[in-house]
Amino acid sequence: MSEQQQEIPERPKEGEQPAAGAAAGEGEKGPSKSALKKAAKEKEKAEKRARLAAEEAARKKADEANDVSKEDYGELPMVREQTGPKYEQLVELATEHEGKDITQANGPKAVFRATVLNARNQSAKLSFLTFAQQEHSIQAVVAGSDTLSKQMVKFAGSIPTLSEVLVHGVLAKPFEPVKSTTVQNLEVHVTKLYLLNKADSQLPLQVADAEGRIPAEGEDNAVSNDGKAIVSLDTRLNNRTLDLTANLNHSILKIRSGVKKLFREFLEERGFLDVDVPEMLGAATEGGASVFEVKYFDKKGYLAQSPQFYKQRLIAARFEKVMMIGHVFRSENSNTNRHLTEFVGLDLEMAFNQHYHEVVSLLENLFLYIFNGLNERYKKETEHVRTVYHVEPFKLPEAGKVPRLEFKEGIQMLRDAGEEVGDFDDLSTPQEKKLGALVLEKYNSDFYVLDKYPLEVRPWYTMPTVETQAAYDPKNPNAGYSNSYDFFMRGQEIMSGAQRIHKAEFLEQRMKEHPNAVDPKHQGIAPYVDAFRQGCPPHAGGGIGLERIVMLWLGLPNVRLATAFPSDPRRLP
Amino acid sequence: MSEQQQEIPERPKEGEQPAAGAAAGEGEKGPSKSALKKAAKEKEKAEKRARLAAEEAARKKADEANDVSKEDYGELPMVREQTGPKYEQLVELATEHEGKDITQANGPKAVFRATVLNARNQSAKLSFLTFAQQEHSIQAVVAGSDTLSKQMVKFAGSIPTLSEVLVHGVLAKPFEPVKSTTVQNLEVHVTKLYLLNKADSQLPLQVADAEGRIPAEGEDNAVSNDGKAIVSLDTRLNNRTLDLTANLNHSILKIRSGVKKLFREFLEERGFLDVDVPEMLGAATEGGASVFEVKYFDKKGYLAQSPQFYKQRLIAARFEKVMMIGHVFRSENSNTNRHLTEFVGLDLEMAFNQHYHEVVSLLENLFLYIFNGLNERYKKETEHVRTVYHVEPFKLPEAGKVPRLEFKEGIQMLRDAGEEVGDFDDLSTPQEKKLGALVLEKYNSDFYVLDKYPLEVRPWYTMPTVETQAAYDPKNPNAGYSNSYDFFMRGQEIMSGAQRIHKAEFLEQRMKEHPNAVDPKHQGIAPYVDAFRQGCPPHAGGGIGLERIVMLWLGLPNVRLATAFPSDPRRLP
Repeated sequence: MSEQQQEIPERPKEGEQPAAGAAAGEGEKGPSKSALKKAAKEKEKAEKRARLAAEEAARKKADEANDVSKEDYGELPMVREQTGPKYEQLVELATEHEGKDITQANGPKAVFRATVLNARNQSAKLSFLTFAQQEHSIQAVVAGSDTLSKQMVKFAGSIPTLSEVLVHGVLAKPFEPVKSTTVQNLEVHVTKLYLLNKADSQLPLQVADAEGRIPAEGEDNAVSNDGKAIVSLDTRLNNRTLDLTANLNHSILKIRSGVKKLFREFLEERGFLDVDVPEMLGAATEGGASVFEVKYFDKKGYLAQSPQFYKQRLIAARFEKVMMIGHVFRSENSNTNRHLTEFVGLDLEMAFNQHYHEVVSLLENLFLYIFNGLNERYKKETEHVRTVYHVEPFKLPEAGKVPRLEFKEGIQMLRDAGEEVGDFDDLSTPQEKKLGALVLEKYNSDFYVLDKYPLEVRPWYTMPTVETQAAYDPKNPNAGYSNSYDFFMRGQEIMSGAQRIHKAEFLEQRMKEHPNAVDPKHQGIAPYVDAFRQGCPPHAGGGIGLERIVMLWLGLPNVRLATAFPSDPRRLP
Repeated sequence: MSEQQQEIPERPKEGEQPAAGAAAGEGEKGPSKSALKKAAKEKEKAEKRARLAAEEAARKKADEANDVSKEDYGELPMVREQTGPKYEQLVELATEHEGKDITQANGPKAVFRATVLNARNQSAKLSFLTFAQQEHSIQAVVAGSDTLSKQMVKFAGSIPTLSEVLVHGVLAKPFEPVKSTTVQNLEVHVTKLYLLNKADSQLPLQVADAEGRIPAEGEDNAVSNDGKAIVSLDTRLNNRTLDLTANLNHSILKIRSGVKKLFREFLEERGFLDVDVPEMLGAATEGGASVFEVKYFDKKGYLAQSPQFYKQRLIAARFEKVMMIGHVFRSENSNTNRHLTEFVGLDLEMAFNQHYHEVVSLLENLFLYIFNGLNERYKKETEHVRTVYHVEPFKLPEAGKVPRLEFKEGIQMLRDAGEEVGDFDDLSTPQEKKLGALVLEKYNSDFYVLDKYPLEVRPWYTMPTVETQAAYDPKNPNAGYSNSYDFFMRGQEIMSGAQRIHKAEFLEQRMKEHPNAVDPKHQGIAPYVDAFRQGCPPHAGGGIGLERIVMLWLGLPNVRLATAFPSDPRRLP
């Protein structure tokens, strides 16, 4: 720093005359007395500057020569090919040594790579740092001594937050437990400290702030109780790599990964095959309104809105039970807190024997497995997020006692509560939430199933109920109910599913008479219809929105928080 | 059938005169003698027909009345809501009863749902069927008796292949082991047989034929030794749901699922987080040539060619170890047997401590885990596919002994074998195959790693080697080698990876001086570059083509066979 300062020319002080060069403007008369005096003063100043600089350089050189620690800190080369002793993990060090009565004199040595979460110079002889490895953090002390120079102390205390470092140190029990780190009864006395990658000093978002919540509606630019900024979602998403650095987001993404893991675990155990189906299709088969178009060489392609047709084709191909985790795309220009244009779908489809409720029961048990698994295996992460976004714990029904209401019962409950709603109307989002509250009150469960939706409000591949088929009236072919169901968490839909039509002729009939009719002979849809000419068994299934589950489990105020890099109509990552 | 035949009017026999109606054309003279004679004959015939029809109807009625089995077979309603006893699984029945000395008289009863793979009427009193549940199959006997009518025998023997049925029967030991089914020492004596979904009698592809291989190059429309048709890939893909019905494809898709499972298992065990990153992006960040464009509202979007930038951003966000399984899209107009326009990538990225070979070693062990896992857990499926597509068993190196060659060693081996190749040329596909053969010969391994590729042939985010950085010449900035590697199976690349540049300034320099230069200030790329201003640790990773692994493990002649619904420039599913 001092070297750089030397090169900055001194600004003339206010009130002073301009110096030498400006004096020449006074004409050819030769220098005036005052000008000569000024020049002498300038010369004197310059000499002084040079003398000071020389002294400073000498001091620096002496400092460097005297720096007993000069090999023990600084920046390492970008590429290294070392094969020294294995670096250690904070969490393992803590497990082994935390709480033991060890001091700097007798403590074990440790070498580890870490991120600097905080660094400050307490004095010329003492710096404190916080080192982190993911969610684990530990306090570090860099104390000047005969063997550790004040230059190294200064270097350590000046490391920018988020820099990546290599640490050598001795573990010891701190004087008192450290409150600001996860490892509280162990600290590191640094002996060597190297920069692996220095972060910029000025980052557009502070990690400490990213650990907090987003503003509530109408609460922009707020500051929370503890003095931290409440960072808007936009600022976060504009700086998402920094935002994701927060442990809050690590917890959310761990829970997200947990949902997928639990989904697969439960279904694998029950013989489901994990398959992949295409996401780029030759036809906008499920209705063209909300489908993204792709330029596919000289033709058009379309992004999948669901794996529906393909999972059913696999059932027709005798796979019996299939599941898939894939991306689905919806070109809906909805800028709400619960819509994404790309999200991850957890899908399954299965043949059943006698009753589509075999599948409904399996789905209920699947969700209970996921919820209980989150409670058991992701308790720490769930609790962490809930300290930031406060929400009531999720009320779970007992196994085998998931409230399963028929649609018409739901309608009746809403009417009894004063809601005006038609027998065969689909429910609006506020009505769904209201019904969720009524179910919670009546059954003490945040999770429930609404079964047998009106035929008309479900896709044409949905199977009508036995009663609806018996009462079939060609003049009113969409009347009645269907073997379809939605699953709800906290009054919001997380899964939609149904028994599907498994006979080609009836499917073709429904394709024609449905309010959103499609042409069974459409080039893109024919392979789907044909699948049911080869003896496809009765089957049912469902599609789960992963982000919705994460959002509702944690009570996040926005679905965008439930995924690493969200897409909406205004933002593509 | 006889009812329908009655309604078809009899065609006049050749040489006969046209009858009644035509006779009117002869004028007003009244009917001639011959005309009267004809009319009389016609009347007689009509009376005979009516008499025969009445007799047939009476016989039918009597048959029905006499049909002791009439409640025991036929077509069930499309939607049923039964909750009877649980249906059984063939594999469990076989485990419990196969080989026991049981007969129709004392054997256990069984109820199960199955697919008819074959049905034939042996005689009026005996039909044989093959019932299947996925890969398991069993022989069934429908034998006429006092309690089982000949009508039911006929019905059973006429069920079209692939129809879905509900079977009630008694299990018994067959006279001799059944060779054509998987369950060989147990058969079913059918007592009731209902159609759940009758398949079309004429399907465009026979499942038995789909169980065979595709033709070799230049071998179209061939017939194999055992008299089965060899069905072309095109015919299969045009009827893919039928084709997927084949156990061959079930085995392939199970192995595919196994590769994903083993990949996740190994990495989860080692602390990798399973994340999802977007597949629809705001910028064609990795070179626009082979990227699919999406119409994104009033803007343009692009389909991901890899999760590269996002997995690295997660490393910068302190995630340390991430993996992801996602779809990637390549708009390459390549109609080869190894290109798809959409495929599944198994990706991982990890921070390392001292040397990028920490990551290379992990990747080697990952692949050994996958290969050994396939050998252990998917032996049956692997062997099944290899009976159809003959290929040498995959030669595996011992743990810790995966051949890891430097690129220049590979070049030297090729030159020693007479190949002409420049020091810094990328390898062509034939050269890769040749090198694979040389490595197999020298190291007895079908799996090996080629390390330290020339800097110039790798993407700009690839880290140069220590030596290359030391010898940096601004006039020749792309000279030298890089810390990058490809993994090979049977001489074909299955994974490409590298250490990535983790410092923003150097990354910007490489973006400018690389042969495929990009602008670091490009709107879509800035968040990626900025990720390295926040202290990102050194890291490396790789991306694995799932279909390639499946294809090369099984020696499939075409990568399209390794996925359920393949996409290529000429075909979108």
